[in-house]
Amino acid sequence: MLSFECDYSEGAHEKILKRLLETNMEQLPGYGSDAYCESAKEKIRKACGCPEAEIFFLTGGTQTNQIVIDAMLRSYEGVVAAETGHVSVHEAGAIEACGHKVLTLPQHQGKIDSTELAALLENFWKDGNHEHMVFPGMVYISHPTEYGTLYTAEELKAISDICREYRIPLYMDGARLGYGLMSLHTDVPLPMVAEYCDVFYIGGTKVGALCGEAVVFTKHNMPAHFLTIVKQHGALMAKGRVLGVQFDTLFTDELYFEISKHAIELAEYMKEGFRKKGLEFFIDSPTNQQFLILENSLMEELQKNVAFSFWETLDDSHTVVRFATSWATQKENIDRLLELL
Amino acid sequence: MLSFECDYSEGAHEKILKRLLETNMEQLPGYGSDAYCESAKEKIRKACGCPEAEIFFLTGGTQTNQIVIDAMLRSYEGVVAAETGHVSVHEAGAIEACGHKVLTLPQHQGKIDSTELAALLENFWKDGNHEHMVFPGMVYISHPTEYGTLYTAEELKAISDICREYRIPLYMDGARLGYGLMSLHTDVPLPMVAEYCDVFYIGGTKVGALCGEAVVFTKHNMPAHFLTIVKQHGALMAKGRVLGVQFDTLFTDELYFEISKHAIELAEYMKEGFRKKGLEFFIDSPTNQQFLILENSLMEELQKNVAFSFWETLDDSHTVVRFATSWATQKENIDRLLELL
Amino acid sequence: MLSFECDYSEGAHEKILKRLLETNMEQLPGYGSDAYCESAKEKIRKACGCPEAEIFFLTGGTQTNQIVIDAMLRSYEGVVAAETGHVSVHEAGAIEACGHKVLTLPQHQGKIDSTELAALLENFWKDGNHEHMVFPGMVYISHPTEYGTLYTAEELKAISDICREYRIPLYMDGARLGYGLMSLHTDVPLPMVAEYCDVFYIGGTKVGALCGEAVVFTKHNMPAHFLTIVKQHGALMAKGRVLGVQFDTLFTDELYFEISKHAIELAEYMKEGFRKKGLEFFIDSPTNQQFLILENSLMEELQKNVAFSFWETLDDSHTVVRFATSWATQKENIDRLLELL
Amino acid sequence: MLSFECDYSEGAHEKILKRLLETNMEQLPGYGSDAYCESAKEKIRKACGCPEAEIFFLTGGTQTNQIVIDAMLRSYEGVVAAETGHVSVHEAGAIEACGHKVLTLPQHQGKIDSTELAALLENFWKDGNHEHMVFPGMVYISHPTEYGTLYTAEELKAISDICREYRIPLYMDGARLGYGLMSLHTDVPLPMVAEYCDVFYIGGTKVGALCGEAVVFTKHNMPAHFLTIVKQHGALMAKGRVLGVQFDTLFTDELYFEISKHAIELAEYMKEGFRKKGLEFFIDSPTNQQFLILENSLMEELQKNVAFSFWETLDDSHTVVRFATSWATQKENIDRLLELL
Repeated sequence: MLSFECDYSEGAHEKILKRLLETNMEQLPGYGSDAYCESAKEKIRKACGCPEAEIFFLTGGTQTNQIVIDAMLRSYEGVVAAETGHVSVHEAGAIEACGHKVLTLPQHQGKIDSTELAALLENFWKDGNHEHMVFPGMVYISHPTEYGTLYTAEELKAISDICREYRIPLYMDGARLGYGLMSLHTDVPLPMVAEYCDVFYIGGTKVGALCGEAVVFTKHNMPAHFLTIVKQHGALMAKGRVLGVQFDTLFTDELYFEISKHAIELAEYMKEGFRKKGLEFFIDSPTNQQFLILENSLMEELQKNVAFSFWETLDDSHTVVRFATSWATQKENIDRLLELL
Repeated sequence: MLSFECDYSEGAHEKILKRLLETNMEQLPGYGSDAYCESAKEKIRKACGCPEAEIFFLTGGTQTNQIVIDAMLRSYEGVVAAETGHVSVHEAGAIEACGHKVLTLPQHQGKIDSTELAALLENFWKDGNHEHMVFPGMVYISHPTEYGTLYTAEELKAISDICREYRIPLYMDGARLGYGLMSLHTDVPLPMVAEYCDVFYIGGTKVGALCGEAVVFTKHNMPAHFLTIVKQHGALMAKGRVLGVQFDTLFTDELYFEISKHAIELAEYMKEGFRKKGLEFFIDSPTNQQFLILENSLMEELQKNVAFSFWETLDDSHTVVRFATSWATQKENIDRLLELL
Repeated sequence: MLSFECDYSEGAHEKILKRLLETNMEQLPGYGSDAYCESAKEKIRKACGCPEAEIFFLTGGTQTNQIVIDAMLRSYEGVVAAETGHVSVHEAGAIEACGHKVLTLPQHQGKIDSTELAALLENFWKDGNHEHMVFPGMVYISHPTEYGTLYTAEELKAISDICREYRIPLYMDGARLGYGLMSLHTDVPLPMVAEYCDVFYIGGTKVGALCGEAVVFTKHNMPAHFLTIVKQHGALMAKGRVLGVQFDTLFTDELYFEISKHAIELAEYMKEGFRKKGLEFFIDSPTNQQFLILENSLMEELQKNVAFSFWETLDDSHTVVRFATSWATQKENIDRLLELL
Repeated sequence: MLSFECDYSEGAHEKILKRLLETNMEQLPGYGSDAYCESAKEKIRKACGCPEAEIFFLTGGTQTNQIVIDAMLRSYEGVVAAETGHVSVHEAGAIEACGHKVLTLPQHQGKIDSTELAALLENFWKDGNHEHMVFPGMVYISHPTEYGTLYTAEELKAISDICREYRIPLYMDGARLGYGLMSLHTDVPLPMVAEYCDVFYIGGTKVGALCGEAVVFTKHNMPAHFLTIVKQHGALMAKGRVLGVQFDTLFTDELYFEISKHAIELAEYMKEGFRKKGLEFFIDSPTNQQFLILENSLMEELQKNVAFSFWETLDDSHTVVRFATSWATQKENIDRLLELL
């Protein structure tokens, strides 16, 4: 059975496991205060071109979104996100569980529009009744989005400018950031992310790690006592080394970028294959997630040999499905998929 | 530098890392639905002598306490715990962050007393004003306790009986459960834990895993939609396999018990060594944590070569300190410690 | 200065103040256990044709929505509401503050559509990913809505049927319920509300009381220990008599219905006057809130002598405004308003 | 049946009801923005000798404690209180419901001791593990306490000094503040409260109002957007006038102080009567709550004709009970009580 179901089907890149083994019996202090965490942070700072960035390692994406958003918002504030944002629909209410509303904007291929964002903020502040409403206190974007799409440098700057005008932080969910950075169709490198965003995370779980996300605060704005806040959310790892060693490895010799590039190359290869077969794309995704519109009988036939994700029902006879590549995808499996099609 | 600072200084038992490597490139479904999680659960059910136990894997201890307690309490209920319980003092308010009070009882060498528990519950229900108070909705015990002590079978049964009388669940924090089970001075085996407790967790982080705790619901009482509740708390691991493979390994060929036994044997060895040196014990601990009263000048001298934990100031010239052994402790290091003393 | 700004501009109906005075020096037990609360409950049960209804008095509308919704939802559930519902936009995030998401449906003149509700519920349950999403656990409707509109008996039954099919409670926000019940264009009497809804509240603040809302649980479904839940939310009034005496008075000799009828008669009179002036209505409201589209210069002229509410900007030269009548509105003030127009 | 059960058995002082009637039909803006609220605030500022105080009116005591504490604490902070403090035991977990722990100190006749407070704060900050603990972020005292006792000026200053040293606010629960201020045995006038406390509330519910508490922020420290925070807690009264008129009346012509003085005079009279009867006091209370130790058979006999509060069981044959006077107590009723004894 072939699987293109998601980008977290395999374990970790072998170099990571190797380093975990090599460092395994070292006695290290807990809670992220070990030398591997420190080294990883330093390498990430360099990769971001942001020497004073403050960095914290967490375990997973929903956890990271929940803690960053809760820690940066005031009690009466909510976070603005696309109606299709991960925080809006697929985190089981993790943001609301911490007391904050997700204020939604329409999505455009998974992205928010800076003009609509500006309008939301302007309308809120000029509403005579706004003290009875949830204050928009942060903007959340995902990059790549849940649809695999990317913000252009111009779009990102426009959103960032609005956030600064209203003095609210811009937060980027980078669960798949590597795949966005290595896309053939992006003009947004990592230092630009660090420049335009007030906080973002570099996803590890979907890009070669067993688990782990690196939160980067770029503007001397890590909330005071963030470690305690993380602990209070039940998210402080005792053996912080597990995250430290992994990110240290990912950011050694460009591993994070290389394995992301691998996923992108195979996604492009797969896309080209789909195109040649005359298959219809639901969206033109420049990253590792590819969305096809399949005729239902074809879909059912294919499911016998290949795992992929149901996305949504298009009409009575067609379905939108997702095929994902990752750092671990093998080219021959794509060849087999294309043959099966 | 020798370290006896805690039982989570090293990585994971080598068999665990080996299995992670061996299974690394298998494509597995996420969120704990893989075959390794299933296999691990089955082995744990057997070890507990509780074939119908429902089991869920989480990442760390505070997270586990927070989610289990929050999921099992009603909104107006609190959890009863010793004043020295981990949930009372060292979880940064994680229980309160979910809206629940920790109702404290006096501690006796880290343990609660069943008579005092019965009195608390009786007094609550007969208080004419109890509707203005937090309802005691669950009892939390740690075993071993934060002081390394253990409940006897009789004590555990007495607490369990009271909980059943008042129809509130008994929850055991087993962060170091292995070390308790393998103590030379316990009459509480794992199936008895499963019998007397309504829910408990088998600690992995401190007993050979990179991370991970196995929550065991013993009475068909796992809260409905527990996976969603875990997700909402930001604690659902995408690559659930990481926890599944680890616990599957720990519960294969008695590994969990063997490595716990190793820690206990070395703790007894160290204890005997301390005794011979004429050192004074703060508490008589039958598990892997040993608490000494050190004269301050001796303590400072020792700190130059050995890491251990400050516990509390006893008086102007004496300090209580903790030395912990673990699955990873090497006998020769204890010999070196004893020499240094 | 005339005011039609809202229906809570005056104090309380004089009969209420009179009764507060008459009973003032009686020594009564606190927290709602006095005889006036009991008497008021009995009268409300009769008016609802629901002899076994459980009733609880609270102080205000947002408080009531927050507590009822929080007490009836499980932790992983959210409440479904119209995107214009009071809980969605004008309660400063009070629902989210208790950990619950508001799941929105499109609004149709302030109402939700039963077909769209059914689709939301069906889609949720058939979504393979629904365990990662917020469960729809309750339906919230306001009647009259925020736009003054009313559900027909048929519409209400359709929504109620769907809720029962999915076994989730239907909750009606009746902040202005009196004005809905006495509308000339409704086929929904109070006993029907009690029949179709699992819980609703009878608004006092906007219908003649100083403060106070009566929550009615119609199906033996008041959450256990509701008084404690209310206390925990900071909403338990020490002098419960203040609410008891008010509702006892409102439900004596049909006062609640009479004063509501007064507001409706004057609203119809005002509406007829607007119509004769050729003014354009934004919506055809059958209750005490009337929404006009005013030319901006006319609006500004009028504001010199009359207070009314800004609702929304329609276009560059027109604005939607609201005129509200209430139990306290005087006919001659409407005549003066019409003259001014 | 005589009642000395509590100080909120009657309605409101007649002057308050009279003013509510007189102002009843005035059309006023909502949510506390009316002229009566403004006037009341100005009078309170004067009474406090604190011209720049920021004042907000809320409905009840638990609500006030919950909102003030939640609004002023950071997410990772708890509030320090006596183990017998109202927030510790009799608010159904309202503080924890907002995510904050109550950190308890021993009580000494209901009061905390400044030396013990200093030790708690010092120990917290020097604990190497404090980042895993709840930060003490505020100090809560009640004055009078739950036992009717009062802090002396010296004690209050000592506590205030410590709070300033650690830069955490001192909050006084003044549910019965009037009775404390008018005690014959106090050297703490209202301006001193305003000087030493960062925030406190002047209780209305127990001192002559139907409901209502006036929160006073004395150091330009009212949290930003406090109205929204109050709304989010479900505590913003639509008809804010109800609170404004009441406090405006209470602070006109010293009414608040006069009626408090009345309660104190009668408490002293009752106390003297008890003393003459040779009854034993549980505590020497200088305010309106008097605590007696009654022989059980006497207690039971008395209960046939008099309502009073059970406080606690002293031993098998004795019980601690409370008799409270208030603004509404009549001297002849005390005479009758003393006769019955």
